[in-house]
Amino acid sequence: MTDARTNMRLKLPATCFILEIILIILFGVLVVYDDDTDSQLFNKHHNTSHGHSDYENDFYYRYPSFQDVHVMIFIGFGFLMTFLQRYGFSSVGFNFLVAAFSLQWATLMQGFFHGLHHGKIHIGVESMINADFCTGSVLISFGAVLGKTSPVQLLVMAVFEVTLFAVNEFILLTLLGTRDAGGSMTIHTFGAYFGLMVTRILYRPNLDKSKHKNCSVYHSDLFAMIGTIYLWMFWPSFNSAVTEHGDAQHRTAMNTYYSLAACTLSTYGMSALTAHDGKLDMVHIQNAALAGGVAAGTAGEMMLTPFGSMIVGFLAGIISVLGYKYLSPVLESKLRIQDTCGVHNLHGMPGVLGAIVGAVTATVASKEVYGHGMERVFPDVANGSRDAYFQGGVQALSLAITLGMAIFGGLAVGFILKLPMFGAPADNACFEDSIYWEVPGEEEAGHEEQMTAVRTEESEKLSA
Amino acid sequence: MTDARTNMRLKLPATCFILEIILIILFGVLVVYDDDTDSQLFNKHHNTSHGHSDYENDFYYRYPSFQDVHVMIFIGFGFLMTFLQRYGFSSVGFNFLVAAFSLQWATLMQGFFHGLHHGKIHIGVESMINADFCTGSVLISFGAVLGKTSPVQLLVMAVFEVTLFAVNEFILLTLLGTRDAGGSMTIHTFGAYFGLMVTRILYRPNLDKSKHKNCSVYHSDLFAMIGTIYLWMFWPSFNSAVTEHGDAQHRTAMNTYYSLAACTLSTYGMSALTAHDGKLDMVHIQNAALAGGVAAGTAGEMMLTPFGSMIVGFLAGIISVLGYKYLSPVLESKLRIQDTCGVHNLHGMPGVLGAIVGAVTATVASKEVYGHGMERVFPDVANGSRDAYFQGGVQALSLAITLGMAIFGGLAVGFILKLPMFGAPADNACFEDSIYWEVPGEEEAGHEEQMTAVRTEESEKLSA
Amino acid sequence: MTDARTNMRLKLPATCFILEIILIILFGVLVVYDDDTDSQLFNKHHNTSHGHSDYENDFYYRYPSFQDVHVMIFIGFGFLMTFLQRYGFSSVGFNFLVAAFSLQWATLMQGFFHGLHHGKIHIGVESMINADFCTGSVLISFGAVLGKTSPVQLLVMAVFEVTLFAVNEFILLTLLGTRDAGGSMTIHTFGAYFGLMVTRILYRPNLDKSKHKNCSVYHSDLFAMIGTIYLWMFWPSFNSAVTEHGDAQHRTAMNTYYSLAACTLSTYGMSALTAHDGKLDMVHIQNAALAGGVAAGTAGEMMLTPFGSMIVGFLAGIISVLGYKYLSPVLESKLRIQDTCGVHNLHGMPGVLGAIVGAVTATVASKEVYGHGMERVFPDVANGSRDAYFQGGVQALSLAITLGMAIFGGLAVGFILKLPMFGAPADNACFEDSIYWEVPGEEEAGHEEQMTAVRTEESEKLSA
Repeated sequence: MTDARTNMRLKLPATCFILEIILIILFGVLVVYDDDTDSQLFNKHHNTSHGHSDYENDFYYRYPSFQDVHVMIFIGFGFLMTFLQRYGFSSVGFNFLVAAFSLQWATLMQGFFHGLHHGKIHIGVESMINADFCTGSVLISFGAVLGKTSPVQLLVMAVFEVTLFAVNEFILLTLLGTRDAGGSMTIHTFGAYFGLMVTRILYRPNLDKSKHKNCSVYHSDLFAMIGTIYLWMFWPSFNSAVTEHGDAQHRTAMNTYYSLAACTLSTYGMSALTAHDGKLDMVHIQNAALAGGVAAGTAGEMMLTPFGSMIVGFLAGIISVLGYKYLSPVLESKLRIQDTCGVHNLHGMPGVLGAIVGAVTATVASKEVYGHGMERVFPDVANGSRDAYFQGGVQALSLAITLGMAIFGGLAVGFILKLPMFGAPADNACFEDSIYWEVPGEEEAGHEEQMTAVRTEESEKLSA
Repeated sequence: MTDARTNMRLKLPATCFILEIILIILFGVLVVYDDDTDSQLFNKHHNTSHGHSDYENDFYYRYPSFQDVHVMIFIGFGFLMTFLQRYGFSSVGFNFLVAAFSLQWATLMQGFFHGLHHGKIHIGVESMINADFCTGSVLISFGAVLGKTSPVQLLVMAVFEVTLFAVNEFILLTLLGTRDAGGSMTIHTFGAYFGLMVTRILYRPNLDKSKHKNCSVYHSDLFAMIGTIYLWMFWPSFNSAVTEHGDAQHRTAMNTYYSLAACTLSTYGMSALTAHDGKLDMVHIQNAALAGGVAAGTAGEMMLTPFGSMIVGFLAGIISVLGYKYLSPVLESKLRIQDTCGVHNLHGMPGVLGAIVGAVTATVASKEVYGHGMERVFPDVANGSRDAYFQGGVQALSLAITLGMAIFGGLAVGFILKLPMFGAPADNACFEDSIYWEVPGEEEAGHEEQMTAVRTEESEKLSA
Repeated sequence: MTDARTNMRLKLPATCFILEIILIILFGVLVVYDDDTDSQLFNKHHNTSHGHSDYENDFYYRYPSFQDVHVMIFIGFGFLMTFLQRYGFSSVGFNFLVAAFSLQWATLMQGFFHGLHHGKIHIGVESMINADFCTGSVLISFGAVLGKTSPVQLLVMAVFEVTLFAVNEFILLTLLGTRDAGGSMTIHTFGAYFGLMVTRILYRPNLDKSKHKNCSVYHSDLFAMIGTIYLWMFWPSFNSAVTEHGDAQHRTAMNTYYSLAACTLSTYGMSALTAHDGKLDMVHIQNAALAGGVAAGTAGEMMLTPFGSMIVGFLAGIISVLGYKYLSPVLESKLRIQDTCGVHNLHGMPGVLGAIVGAVTATVASKEVYGHGMERVFPDVANGSRDAYFQGGVQALSLAITLGMAIFGGLAVGFILKLPMFGAPADNACFEDSIYWEVPGEEEAGHEEQMTAVRTEESEKLSA
C-alpha cells in the first residue's frame, strides 16, 4: 500500500493542467508582442527611418544577459540545492517545474502591474528577464522549505508569491521610483524573508526524524558546486540585465565582478577561521561566496567604484559565513525557523546590506560624479523632482516596505500551505526523493566480475 | 585474450585519420573565408563606406546564439545520454567525437549544396551554426542506437547522414523555399526517423542479455539532467540562431521560451498521471519537457503569438510522455525498433507536430499581421511569387519529403552498418563503457580507515 | 589531535584577509572606471556626438566573450581537475579561491604595466578579460602541482606568478609588438613551464605513498568531462576575446573552432592507437582534445585559413597524446617533474607549437592577403616600421623570452613555496580533500531498507 497523502497521481496533474490552461487563456486574452518582437511594428519603423538598423532591436542589447540569467535560474538555483544526498531529483526537478510555471505567471502579473497598453501586456526580451527575476525570488523561498514540501505546495506558493512580488515591485519601482536593478530588495530580501516566514509556519518539531538525510555526500556536494559556480560567474549579468544600456550595464557588471571576487576571499578566510579543525566547510563555499552578488544588487549600477564594490563584497562574505555558523542554529532553536539552504545568510542579510549600501550610495550621488549619466541612473534626481537625499530616503523606505510585504505575505501563504490536501511529506520522509520520484537503485555490485564473465564468454565465442 | 572484434586499436585510428586527412584536403581545396571573416574583404568595405561599423559584422548578431547552440550539441546532447549507469564515458565521449567530425563534414556538404561561389565554399558564423545544426541531427540518430554501436559505426553513420541531411535541407530550403528556421523537419524529424530506421535494421533479438545495464542509477540521472536543462534553456537560441536579424530572431526566441515553459507543466502533469504510484518518472522529465522546443522549430519565427506557442508546447509535452509510456514498448515489441533514448518521443512526433503547426501557421499568414516583415519571414509570399496557401502546402510537402529521405536513408545506412568489421559490441556487452574505454574502478572501500591511519601517522611524526 | 602543520585555521584566514585588504587599498588609490564604464565620461560623448549609439560601448563587443572566458576559468579549469577520486572539493574549491584572488591582483599588475593614465588604472570589460586570461595562466600552473599544495601555497604562488605574467606580457605585447591574442605564449607556455618548474622544486620522492589516490573513479571522470567540454566549446571565444573588433574576432573564433574539431579526431585516433588493448583513455580525451585551442592561440587571428587551422589542431592532438603516453613518465622518472594534470602535454608543447605557427604565419603575411586589415593584425608591419620577416623574428624571440621568464620564475617561486609555514600536505596525504575540507561520508548503506521502513510506518499510521 502506498501513502495516499503524498501520492501525486491526481493532485499534481490537476494542478499543472489547471494552472497551464488558465495561463494559456490569459495569454490569449491579454498578451501581445511588443514593438521589437512584432513583425509589423518593428518593420514599420525599419522601412521609414533609413538610419534604422536591426541592431536597435533590444534583443541584441539584452539577450546574452537574459541567457546568463536563465542559466542562473535553472542550473544555478537547481544544482545549488542538490547538495542533499537523496534530494537531487527534487532539487533540480521541482526547481525546473516551479520556475517554468513562475516565469509564465510572472509575465502576466508584472505586465499587469507595470502598465497595460490599451488593455494588453506587451512582451519582449526585457519582460522575459523580469519574469526570470521574479522566478528567482520564488526559488529563493524554495530554498528555505527545501525537502519539506510537495510539488503542489510549491506551485501554490508560487502563485501567491509571484503576485505579491509584482505588487511589491510595482510599489518600489513604479510608485516610489526606487532603483534596484539587481534586486537586492525586490528579489533577494523579498524572496528570503517570504520563504523564512513560510518555513516558520510550516515548522516541524519532529524534523529530526529525517536528520540523517538532511546532509550531503561527497558527490552531491560536487553537483552543488556546479550551481554555485554558475551563479557566481553570471551574477554580473544578473545585476546588469535590466539597467540602462551603455555605461550603466557595463559598470554594473564590473562592480558585481569585483564584489564577488572580494567576497570569495573573505568567505574562505571566515570558513577556515570558524569551522571545525581549521578546515573549510562546503556549505560556506557553496553559499557565502555568492553574497557579494546579492549585496551589489542595488548599488551595482551606481558609481559605487570598484573599490566600494570590493568593500561591500568583503563584508557580505563575512556576514554570510557568520550567519551560517552562529545565526542559523539560533533561528532554528529559538525562532523555530528551519531554513534548509540557509537563505537568510545568502539572500536575507546580504540583501538588506545591499539595500542599505544602495540607499547610502544614492544619498551621495552628485552631478559632478555622474554627469549626464544622472538621467539614466537617477532620473528623478536629474530632472529635479527630488534631490539625492530624498532618493536615499526612498531607497531606505523601500527596504522597510519589502520586509513588511515579505513577512506578512509569507505568514499568510504559510498558513495556506498547511492544508493537508497539498501532500506534504511526513516528518520521517523529508529530504527524500523516493516520495515523489521513481528512484533507480545504486550501481550494482559485482560489476567487474560480470564484465570478466562477458569477456570470457566472448573470447570463447571468437576462438570457437 | 581480448575481443578482436570490438578492439579499436587499428579500426578507430584508421577511421579518424583517414576522415580527418580527407577533410583537411577538401578544406584546402574548397573552403575560403567569407566577407565577414576575411581580412581583406571586410576591411575593403570598412574603409570605403564611412558609415560602416564593425557591428555590421555578422559575428555580433549571431555569435552568442552560436555559442548557445554549441553548448546544446556538446553538453546538452552529450550529458542527456549519460543516464545509462555504465555508459557515461561513451555517451559524452562518442557524442564529442561524432560531433567534432560531423561539424567539419557538414561545413563541406552544406557549403556544396547551398551554393558555391566561384567553386569555393564561403564560411563564417552562420555556416558554423548550420554545421552544428546538421551535427544535432546526427546526434539525435545516435540517441536511437545508443549503447549498441561502436565509435567506428557512428562515424560511418555520420558520413552518410550528414550528406543526406544536406541534400534534404537543399531540397527544402533552397528548391522549395520552405521555412524551417529551428529545424522541426530538417533536424528533428529527419534525425529521429533516420535513427529509428538504423536501429530497426540493427535490431538485436537478444538485447535483453544487457538489460540490467540498460537503465539509470541515481547519479547518472543527475548527470543527464545537466544535459536536459542546458537543452531547455538554450532552445530559444537554437530556434532563433539563423532566422533573419531583428524582430524575427527576437520573436523566435520568445515563442520558444513560452512553448517550453508550457511543455514543462504538461510533462510533469502527464508523468505523475501515467507513472507507477503517482510518482514522477525521470525519463519523462529529462526528455518530454524538451518537446516544446522541437515543436516550435518551424513556426517559431512566424507570428505564432505567445498564446499559440504555449498551446503547441502544451500538446508536445502530452504527446511525448504518452509516447514514452505507451508507444515505445509497442515499437520495440511489434516493430522491432529498439530506441534507447526514445528519440521518437522527443524528436520524432514533436518534430512532425512542429512541421504541421508550421504549415498551418504559414497558411494563415497575411500582410495585415506581418506588415513589411512579410519579406523576411515569407519572402516568396511577400514578392507575390506564391500565396500563403501555397506556402502552407509546400511546408506540408516538405514534411513528407523529409520523412521519405529519413526512412529510406536510414534503412540503407543501417545495412551498411551491419558489416562486422565496424566492431559492434556483442549482445551481452551493450550499454557498457568498458568495451571501448579504460574504465577506472569505483571508489575504494575503507577510505575513512585509511585516512585515520594517515592522521595518526602524521600526529606521531609531529609529536616526535 | 590534528596535524598542526596543515591546519589552516589561522594561516588561510590571515592570508586571505591580508591579501584582500591590500587589494582593496590599492584599488582605492589606483583604479578608476574607464571611458565606457564611467557615467560622466561615457555620457559626455553620448550627448555631444549625435551619431553616437550605446552600441559603441565596448561592453556589447566583448561581454559575451568575457562570459565564455569566465566559464572556462571557473567551470572549465575547475572541473577539468576533478578527475582525482578524492580531490574534487579542492580542485573546484581552490581553483575558485585562487582565481578570485588572481583576477583582482592581475587587474592591478596588468594595469600598472600596460600603462597608467595620470597615475590611474582604467578598467572595463577588456581589462576584465585580460585579468581572467592572467588567472588562466596561474590555473595552468596549479594543474602541475595539483594535490600536493596547500591553499596558502597556491595564493603565494599566484602573487608572484601574476606579477611575472604581467611583466612578460608587457615585454611581449607592449615593448616588442608581439601578436598573441589567444596567449599561446603569454598564457599557455608561460603557465605550463612556470608550473613545471615549481613542481620540480617541490619534488616529492615519496609521493607513491599517495599513489592509490592519484587516479580517477568513474564519476570523477564524468565531472572532469564537464570541464573538458566547456573548455573545448568556449575556446573560440577565448582566442578571439581581445582581438580587434570585426573580422579579426570573427576569424579567430572560426579558426579555433576548426582547429579544435581536427584535434579531437587525432586525439581519439592516437588514444586508441597507443592505449592498452585498443581502448580509449579518458586522460587523453579530457586533455589532448583541447590542444588544438592552445595551438591556435597566436595564429588564430591571422589569415591562417580553416585549412591551416585544421592542420595545426591535428598535429597538436597527436603531440599531446604522445606526450601523455611517452613523455610524462620520463619527465617524472628522469627529470623529477611530477606533473599531476600533464600540463606539459596540454599547455606546454601545444603552446610552443602555437608560438612557432604564429611566427611562421607572421613571416608570410602580405598586403595582398590582408588588405587594409593588415593595420589591425600587424599594425607595425602595416605602418612600415618593420617588415613581415622581422615580425616573424620578434614572434620567435618572444617564445624564447617567455620560456626564460617561466623557467627562472618558476624555479624561484618553487623555492619560496618550500617554506614549511605554508602548510603543504604530507607525502601520504596528497590528493586528499579531507586534509583541508570537512568531508561528508559516502551515501549511507541500507538506504532502501530504511525507505521501506518509512513507508510501512506511514501506511500503518494512515490505516490507523
